[in-house]
Amino acid sequence: MSKFWSDVVHKLTPYVPGEQPKLDNLVKLNTNENPYGPSPKVIEALKLEAADSLRLYPDPNSDALKAAIAKTHHLNVNQVFVGNGSDEVLAHVFQALLKHDKPLLFPDITYSFYPVYCGLYGIPYKTIPLSEDFSINIEDYAQANGGIIFPNPNAPTGIPLALEKIEQLLKHNAESVVVIDEAYVDFGTESAVSLVNQYPNLLVIHTLSKARSLAGLRVGYALGNSDLIEALTRVKDSFNSYPIDRFASAGAIVAMQDVEYFDETCRHVVNTREALVKDLADLGFDILPSGANFIFAKHPLKDGAELTAELRAKSIIVRHFKSPTRISPYLRITIGTDMQSNILISALKDILQN
Amino acid sequence: MSKFWSDVVHKLTPYVPGEQPKLDNLVKLNTNENPYGPSPKVIEALKLEAADSLRLYPDPNSDALKAAIAKTHHLNVNQVFVGNGSDEVLAHVFQALLKHDKPLLFPDITYSFYPVYCGLYGIPYKTIPLSEDFSINIEDYAQANGGIIFPNPNAPTGIPLALEKIEQLLKHNAESVVVIDEAYVDFGTESAVSLVNQYPNLLVIHTLSKARSLAGLRVGYALGNSDLIEALTRVKDSFNSYPIDRFASAGAIVAMQDVEYFDETCRHVVNTREALVKDLADLGFDILPSGANFIFAKHPLKDGAELTAELRAKSIIVRHFKSPTRISPYLRITIGTDMQSNILISALKDILQN
Repeated sequence: MSKFWSDVVHKLTPYVPGEQPKLDNLVKLNTNENPYGPSPKVIEALKLEAADSLRLYPDPNSDALKAAIAKTHHLNVNQVFVGNGSDEVLAHVFQALLKHDKPLLFPDITYSFYPVYCGLYGIPYKTIPLSEDFSINIEDYAQANGGIIFPNPNAPTGIPLALEKIEQLLKHNAESVVVIDEAYVDFGTESAVSLVNQYPNLLVIHTLSKARSLAGLRVGYALGNSDLIEALTRVKDSFNSYPIDRFASAGAIVAMQDVEYFDETCRHVVNTREALVKDLADLGFDILPSGANFIFAKHPLKDGAELTAELRAKSIIVRHFKSPTRISPYLRITIGTDMQSNILISALKDILQN
Repeated sequence: MSKFWSDVVHKLTPYVPGEQPKLDNLVKLNTNENPYGPSPKVIEALKLEAADSLRLYPDPNSDALKAAIAKTHHLNVNQVFVGNGSDEVLAHVFQALLKHDKPLLFPDITYSFYPVYCGLYGIPYKTIPLSEDFSINIEDYAQANGGIIFPNPNAPTGIPLALEKIEQLLKHNAESVVVIDEAYVDFGTESAVSLVNQYPNLLVIHTLSKARSLAGLRVGYALGNSDLIEALTRVKDSFNSYPIDRFASAGAIVAMQDVEYFDETCRHVVNTREALVKDLADLGFDILPSGANFIFAKHPLKDGAELTAELRAKSIIVRHFKSPTRISPYLRITIGTDMQSNILISALKDILQN
């Protein structure tokens, strides 16, 4: 607390990301990173950027990167906005498109950064409880709103929502922006990108941190009608001219282009997930249906906090959310390699036998 | 204009950065980049980052980078805040520390991003005219304010303000934050960092884009009392958990450490500036005193816009500001290599002879 702080600072409750431990030799299944590194072509492109040209600013508009993203998704360049990770993109989305008199709607259990953005920008919001089975019931969103946002698949549940439900939501909310945050979409959830040309109120958010194995590079993007993209660009150009550095641009371009590598790593992760779900079920876990690179699971005999601590003692880190109480029995487990799944399963066997 | 836009978007007048032309073979003296590349040690460190570890998030708190910066400036880690270029740092500073009921004060002729930030965050401000000779007269700031900000040396004039004047300002404004934006300080202006431990209302902003030749990497930082730094951290953690990617962190750490290379390139730039000032004076230019890696100069016989266009026709780009009219006769010329100075001088000779 300080006389020098602006009012908003006193009121903030910042987001707390998953732990990034500075220890090696941990089985790190807590922040939904890809167990496989980026495409070798990405690594090669990045090496070339370590050069004298770093003395020069990057392209403030990231035209080449936008072109690569547009091509991947069969859209026009003016339907693409890029930022320093999808969190920065989301921040601009909240300020540029979701601040209205009517409340923004999002699920009560979802990405916990959403209420933080609302605090930062003074955005009124209302949370909509998930159904008993943790799914999003779109009928519950049929009320006055200044926008709707949720991840698909949802976080931390991993449950996907069918595209026809999203289309229904877009039709019933023609006056407000519907943001579908598809950070985890590539692991078996149907993307809403196919609806972008049809619905001027749809904005889809993607990241290169998960399926494209580039969490360390910080690139995310938004896809939508050029009119929505223009709002984001105006805010970005009033905030930071050059958010995408030369490495981020060069690496992300190649990551978008190497579709073969991308498909292969996604397939691996999905296969590992399916095997892990089966093994966890054999140990008595209840696992929510996942369209993501993580699963949300609870055990009838052990509390989530307790399990997390006991795994941690065995050098395995998973994520646990204390609140709301409805999800406190659950662990969010990132899908790693098959080897990491085996280590996890044998640790859980140990823990549950005692 | 769109029904989907938040109110603030309609009101924004985004900042326009200097052109980043996609042509080679230009003598590019328009965006104050360093003519020398980063330290070879920086390049080596960056090559090592092109690796599988990019699948992992960077440290959200950038502890290692903050430690390197703290060491350079003989401060504690909790007196350092880092961001995606000093523009992002400034954005957070405006939102976290400069939004108050009383108006923020800054010069009428200064970094043109300041009023843009005020627009983005709804910050009341008042501009204080520079003196006749384009210097900052600190007596003019003796009035009710919610903060004071200016670059030292000022931009685009390049004129440095003496440290004793800044200290006077800090003493007379103990109730509000005084931000000294030292993007260009390393080219011959005295830094206010030496005052950070004495004045809890002082915040100093630095960038690695200029003297450390890393405009392409996007790293800037703020130095000040831990209480000011905490406000910035709270806003950052409510905006984007991981603004500093793995390359930015690794390259910036080594750039802070290689003091010898840094001193040498700064000395080169200053020597080239002194020679260029002399040559321009010989051609009849009026040049403002510069403590920066650029100069602000006008010619009695040629308008600034005209000169800029004629240089552009000869593949030389300098920066020209149309408004306010007081500065429209001037060119802002970045200091390049000695060779680039020679090309510029011979082009100007040609232009002025016709």
